[in-house]
Amino acid sequence: MELVKIVEILEEIAPPELADDFDEGRIGVILDLEREIKRIVVALDANSYILKKAAEMRADLLITHHTLIFHPINKISKPLAASLKLALENGISLYSMHTNYDRADGGINDVLAARIGLKNIEILEIGRIGEIEPCSSSELATHVSECLQTPVMYAGEKEIRRVMIFGGSGFREEFLEIARANKADAFVSSELKHDILRNYEDLCLIDATHYATENPGMEELCSRLRKLPGIEVEFIEQPSGLRAIDRTLSRRIKDALDVTEEKTLCEQKEMKKDSMESMIEEQSRNQVRSDYRRSLGSESRRKYME
Amino acid sequence: MELVKIVEILEEIAPPELADDFDEGRIGVILDLEREIKRIVVALDANSYILKKAAEMRADLLITHHTLIFHPINKISKPLAASLKLALENGISLYSMHTNYDRADGGINDVLAARIGLKNIEILEIGRIGEIEPCSSSELATHVSECLQTPVMYAGEKEIRRVMIFGGSGFREEFLEIARANKADAFVSSELKHDILRNYEDLCLIDATHYATENPGMEELCSRLRKLPGIEVEFIEQPSGLRAIDRTLSRRIKDALDVTEEKTLCEQKEMKKDSMESMIEEQSRNQVRSDYRRSLGSESRRKYME
Amino acid sequence: MELVKIVEILEEIAPPELADDFDEGRIGVILDLEREIKRIVVALDANSYILKKAAEMRADLLITHHTLIFHPINKISKPLAASLKLALENGISLYSMHTNYDRADGGINDVLAARIGLKNIEILEIGRIGEIEPCSSSELATHVSECLQTPVMYAGEKEIRRVMIFGGSGFREEFLEIARANKADAFVSSELKHDILRNYEDLCLIDATHYATENPGMEELCSRLRKLPGIEVEFIEQPSGLRAIDRTLSRRIKDALDVTEEKTLCEQKEMKKDSMESMIEEQSRNQVRSDYRRSLGSESRRKYME
Amino acid sequence: MELVKIVEILEEIAPPELADDFDEGRIGVILDLEREIKRIVVALDANSYILKKAAEMRADLLITHHTLIFHPINKISKPLAASLKLALENGISLYSMHTNYDRADGGINDVLAARIGLKNIEILEIGRIGEIEPCSSSELATHVSECLQTPVMYAGEKEIRRVMIFGGSGFREEFLEIARANKADAFVSSELKHDILRNYEDLCLIDATHYATENPGMEELCSRLRKLPGIEVEFIEQPSGLRAIDRTLSRRIKDALDVTEEKTLCEQKEMKKDSMESMIEEQSRNQVRSDYRRSLGSESRRKYME
Amino acid sequence: MELVKIVEILEEIAPPELADDFDEGRIGVILDLEREIKRIVVALDANSYILKKAAEMRADLLITHHTLIFHPINKISKPLAASLKLALENGISLYSMHTNYDRADGGINDVLAARIGLKNIEILEIGRIGEIEPCSSSELATHVSECLQTPVMYAGEKEIRRVMIFGGSGFREEFLEIARANKADAFVSSELKHDILRNYEDLCLIDATHYATENPGMEELCSRLRKLPGIEVEFIEQPSGLRAIDRTLSRRIKDALDVTEEKTLCEQKEMKKDSMESMIEEQSRNQVRSDYRRSLGSESRRKYME
Amino acid sequence: MELVKIVEILEEIAPPELADDFDEGRIGVILDLEREIKRIVVALDANSYILKKAAEMRADLLITHHTLIFHPINKISKPLAASLKLALENGISLYSMHTNYDRADGGINDVLAARIGLKNIEILEIGRIGEIEPCSSSELATHVSECLQTPVMYAGEKEIRRVMIFGGSGFREEFLEIARANKADAFVSSELKHDILRNYEDLCLIDATHYATENPGMEELCSRLRKLPGIEVEFIEQPSGLRAIDRTLSRRIKDALDVTEEKTLCEQKEMKKDSMESMIEEQSRNQVRSDYRRSLGSESRRKYME
Repeated sequence: MELVKIVEILEEIAPPELADDFDEGRIGVILDLEREIKRIVVALDANSYILKKAAEMRADLLITHHTLIFHPINKISKPLAASLKLALENGISLYSMHTNYDRADGGINDVLAARIGLKNIEILEIGRIGEIEPCSSSELATHVSECLQTPVMYAGEKEIRRVMIFGGSGFREEFLEIARANKADAFVSSELKHDILRNYEDLCLIDATHYATENPGMEELCSRLRKLPGIEVEFIEQPSGLRAIDRTLSRRIKDALDVTEEKTLCEQKEMKKDSMESMIEEQSRNQVRSDYRRSLGSESRRKYME
Repeated sequence: MELVKIVEILEEIAPPELADDFDEGRIGVILDLEREIKRIVVALDANSYILKKAAEMRADLLITHHTLIFHPINKISKPLAASLKLALENGISLYSMHTNYDRADGGINDVLAARIGLKNIEILEIGRIGEIEPCSSSELATHVSECLQTPVMYAGEKEIRRVMIFGGSGFREEFLEIARANKADAFVSSELKHDILRNYEDLCLIDATHYATENPGMEELCSRLRKLPGIEVEFIEQPSGLRAIDRTLSRRIKDALDVTEEKTLCEQKEMKKDSMESMIEEQSRNQVRSDYRRSLGSESRRKYME
Repeated sequence: MELVKIVEILEEIAPPELADDFDEGRIGVILDLEREIKRIVVALDANSYILKKAAEMRADLLITHHTLIFHPINKISKPLAASLKLALENGISLYSMHTNYDRADGGINDVLAARIGLKNIEILEIGRIGEIEPCSSSELATHVSECLQTPVMYAGEKEIRRVMIFGGSGFREEFLEIARANKADAFVSSELKHDILRNYEDLCLIDATHYATENPGMEELCSRLRKLPGIEVEFIEQPSGLRAIDRTLSRRIKDALDVTEEKTLCEQKEMKKDSMESMIEEQSRNQVRSDYRRSLGSESRRKYME
Repeated sequence: MELVKIVEILEEIAPPELADDFDEGRIGVILDLEREIKRIVVALDANSYILKKAAEMRADLLITHHTLIFHPINKISKPLAASLKLALENGISLYSMHTNYDRADGGINDVLAARIGLKNIEILEIGRIGEIEPCSSSELATHVSECLQTPVMYAGEKEIRRVMIFGGSGFREEFLEIARANKADAFVSSELKHDILRNYEDLCLIDATHYATENPGMEELCSRLRKLPGIEVEFIEQPSGLRAIDRTLSRRIKDALDVTEEKTLCEQKEMKKDSMESMIEEQSRNQVRSDYRRSLGSESRRKYME
Repeated sequence: MELVKIVEILEEIAPPELADDFDEGRIGVILDLEREIKRIVVALDANSYILKKAAEMRADLLITHHTLIFHPINKISKPLAASLKLALENGISLYSMHTNYDRADGGINDVLAARIGLKNIEILEIGRIGEIEPCSSSELATHVSECLQTPVMYAGEKEIRRVMIFGGSGFREEFLEIARANKADAFVSSELKHDILRNYEDLCLIDATHYATENPGMEELCSRLRKLPGIEVEFIEQPSGLRAIDRTLSRRIKDALDVTEEKTLCEQKEMKKDSMESMIEEQSRNQVRSDYRRSLGSESRRKYME
Repeated sequence: MELVKIVEILEEIAPPELADDFDEGRIGVILDLEREIKRIVVALDANSYILKKAAEMRADLLITHHTLIFHPINKISKPLAASLKLALENGISLYSMHTNYDRADGGINDVLAARIGLKNIEILEIGRIGEIEPCSSSELATHVSECLQTPVMYAGEKEIRRVMIFGGSGFREEFLEIARANKADAFVSSELKHDILRNYEDLCLIDATHYATENPGMEELCSRLRKLPGIEVEFIEQPSGLRAIDRTLSRRIKDALDVTEEKTLCEQKEMKKDSMESMIEEQSRNQVRSDYRRSLGSESRRKYME
């Protein structure tokens, strides 16, 4: 099948005009090697690991959620060179669908909602909201961890009936306001930040990782494309590798333990010097650092802003 | 003591010119109620929980790492009104030190490095790098979890000797490049993102939460201020409440289990309809959504960009 | 009555979408303290004087033309802290209507036109134009001074039949072009500037102060709200305090007087030194100043631009 | 004398690098007709009135404080065409000195300070501050009106000893903060705005008109240039024409008068209709206006912002 | 005829809303001297040569394709002063039609297409495409040179049937993509650039000069206006003066000639010094230059960017 | 030799900090394939023709004046894919030096000045100026055509002694002002534009093509690098293919010829219809086009601006 034909089908599944404006330049054909497409592979990311697998599988087209070049470039970095070499030498064209597939019917968010088992799902502009059997925050977190086979981090204890989900990085104020407005009790997404945690203590917030909340949608896309006649379609898995560890002592236990003991666990910078003396030393070091910062042109300082 | 006098001391501890440019307007006195300062409280955040505690403790000044108003405002939201009311009614002035205290000698990053027990610490422009006893990624993650008393998420297995740390949200490309250039094996910070995880697989990445990597620095600030004569200084703790759950089955176990069983755990959207029919339905729903998006002015669509 | 109900009524009186784009963030509820509204006060400005009066009058809501926070802020200045304290401690919510009420039917401009007694009023996009009994510029200025009870400054002698009015700061080129295009003889507004004075010498320009041209519209708003059942509505007056003094001698008198006499009125810098010598001195001082300006970073110099 | 020679002298008097950054493109030779300069005229503005006088006086060069073209242009408006025609036909080159001459030693601000008779003058970066014999606000306003032969508007009663002055449009927050920081009691400048009036009630603010505060500096420049050998130098006066009228009744008188009488002075819009009915009418008119505004492209609406 | 009447006719010929957005401020009446228009002159440019001719011809209105002031100005340069003087003294109003007349029916591009003799012309948004008798690139270049009476530069040998034309500076990527998409073999326009030459080697590119591709359209406008009753209309010719010279030896000839001979034609910098020594010298000079560049503020360096 | 070593040498030849600010991201290593460099090729451009030649020559490094990716990209176009494939498959790293090498001692401009045989060369910030034997414009144009073996276009007859040169696209106002200020009679560069031609009629302007004015500098770079021990260095030639044709008849001849004859050479659009009728037709077509333009969103219209 010609690429142009496949693009038509993909644009029906995830119409490009559904994409966020910031995705300009990142949706659609990213690399067109003009070859008859016989084998498609689908994956979450476009990187050298995926492209190597794709080459091994003799794919002609790789469809991903995250594009190859996120920020526009003038130079080819080494990792990009490695990925491009694999694509170019093995004749693998690239196609990317991102926020358009998040929003699309049957896309990232619909699949995520289904995987978690939400009922009576309502479609918001981009996320989804639905109901579950009443449970506690830790029960929901456990359920999500099992359903998505991912470690999760969560906060906010409450009884939960309504859950809003958003695949990928969705802990943004505007989405949490939608959650509140729609009387959600919990919000499942990824890349939870401190300020969101502080400002939405009334909600149960579950960070189920970017990978685990988006990968199912790409698996599903793969299944749908398998229905195309005369084309083989495979999925490439690339787990995030994330693991959780929690060695926090409960408050009660901490109170019971000797503070000194805690200190033996983790060595601490010793601050034995006379406080006056040490304060003077630190201030003179700060002075050196201030002078250095001041000496930087405003441009080089500014780089930390973006 | 007059506020102006305390400000001088705080500016020696964390000179404002050390701050990143994006912190303009967020460093220094945020609210000045012109009262003799007898009692100072220190905390990570400036929110209504902290201000209520501060009021109970009869504080005259609250010093925080995160400022009260992050993005400039024209309107007073309800949570801000609540915080402001507490500050104004109880005469609590506000002072904020942020990236200047991150960089400062004895600041956020120095304290974090000490808590984790790094040796031979080198000062980078903003983060710190040091050595630990050789260990595995999971051992380091466990160690960090214990030292900082926080759940952690981590990825990237390797033998670790050199560790770079960065309090707060430090998983930014520029800092990880510094880690690589300085031959760090692990990077401890918070708010780890998917693209960083993918692009820095050669490093052990440990997300130890924003709270747990910054709070120690504020505790330490509190200890230092206690040395001031004639002023009482207290710390207000406000834990993040984050907990980790990991119900991921190991690959081996998953392979051994029947796939059907997994499905019973998490209900899935059933897709029984004839595929052709369902695809047509979805496409028509996408059409409606496309039309809707197109009908939005470009301004309202753009909001998702920022 | 609930605030949300009152907001509905206010939005019928002055629909927010009538506002200029630059008013974004300044129209509507500025502070919402969620209290049953029993007493409303109306005023031109939202400052501590007004809020103190509002508190004395036990108001639950203050409606003003000028908002509390004009330019977005990160820090709370002392005057703002004073105002906010009064509002928060006394439970006074704030609502602001600005250019939307200028444009609205029965708003600032309609009331101003009525106060001055214009006939056959035409509605321009924002200002109003109407007719008066033929009079001279000084007669119109006198009439406006009496009607609005304000000192006025005016220039441009001519016979006047058609008058354009614009409440607040309306001496902008675009509005004066509208005045000309509509064959107005006089333009009544406030904050007259030198360049307007020079470029529109064909019009009689009357500066009747910002306060006196806008306050009547707010008084009228107060009257309209009094019709609401079950709510008490009061107006708070805060005069501008402006006074005019004119000790200009007429040209004829000046010609008759000895120039020396004028000099005795106002001492003048004596310039007795040899001109060559004094010029050299001044130039060397300029040199010092130039060097200083050059030494300023372009950023600090730029502040005078805005 | 060649123009280039005169420019050198003018640049010593008012070095261009003293100018504010926003004056870029407005300082120096604005029109160079390459003629031997025999007669110079000096004025505040460059407009057709001044250029006509300059032509009558057979001037070769006009030096002004305000430039001919303030905002950059692509088209020649009719007033500009008239001015340019006079300059080009009569061979009158143009030179402009603006904020550089404000700052310069012996420039606009020094002359203004001298005219008002300030003592012990201190030079701020741009304005000047000095002392006068203790007096009331109205006495100072009267004194300024006499010295500068201009109507004035003023507000803020207090006893005055220290006065800050700023020729031209100086009622900007940054300058008033300087006034406060330098313990000035009064600020004399022009183009006083409502927000300044409200925020600086602790100061006596005197608006002595743009013309009257800047013209003396240009007169003085003329006197200085007269010392140049072999060149005739004349000043062209163009008074602002502003006059003040104050028909405000004192509060006491107003209370004594019948309210009805006031109404006879100024006709008021009669609002006799049943309030419900009239409110409905107004709302429907507002609706029409809202629809109209919404129908405007955001570009045309935005014009009111600048 | 009044200017306003003529403007109406010109706006029918070239509706201003057809213009590119970047032409804002450059379309329409540029200078209005309010005189009864009896004689119109038409030309490509508005400069002092044209205005002198226009004055000699006693024109009241000059209509040009290129406006008088392209980039907005604050100062009057000498060439502009010369042009303005001619216009103002001789009462010549100015009108400009640019990209609106390029696009207009019967405008620049239609006339150009006709002059070259294209058949079956299709209208693209701005250029035109048509057919010619099959010929080689050099034959087409020769034909264009003859038709437009201009030297041409061209590249890209191929058999040509379809030609896209674009009057003025049209060698822009977007237009060449349109040429390709429409299967043009050749593109005739002007101001051909190196990157276009490299990237569109599949097309025959003919640079027929800006003047020669646009002047015919203005001649045609002149003819059309001649039909207006009671007004005399003349065209002013101002050839570009461009001439081509080609002393390139064919590769074959060059190979046959002694290389030394070529060197006698063009002297070359002799590089006899020991290479090591000379390299060191150059490097030290580069060092001086680098230091100089670094010493420039970023603003002055940036000027080369625009 | 390692690439890093070669980069050091190249940075001595053309220090990156000499580059214009707009060249950010375009100077230095563009693609680093980390291979021992044994063979370097040098060329003007980095495109698939050059890379194919480089691959045939088994090069490890290609050094060019124009970079591979000029404007930052998110997608890989087909021509770029072709170039990248050649580079990646054949292990050819890329290095680019642009405006830094223009300015550098012994760089583009110095070589160009030498090729044309200028004497007493002065270094301007970026171009060069020198003397030649007095000659006419056409003699100089002929000389340049021979020296650089390129067709040229020129205008402006005068006697020439001083010549300014600028390799590449140098016909910018700022450079021509430098030429005038330095009393150059001629300016040799490329990509001459109409407005420059009109505004600098006092100079002889010679457009010697971008290729022919820059390629010599790259040839020279190649010669210099040949001195490096143990590395083979070759140059790849890719002529522009430009040819000039001039079939302009001299004015005298044209006057002698019958105008009708000219018309037989180039067919012209016949305009036989009654002018009234045809004007109406065109206007209605313009109407359609206006409506179309108005219907375009402002964004799509704007694309013509950049």
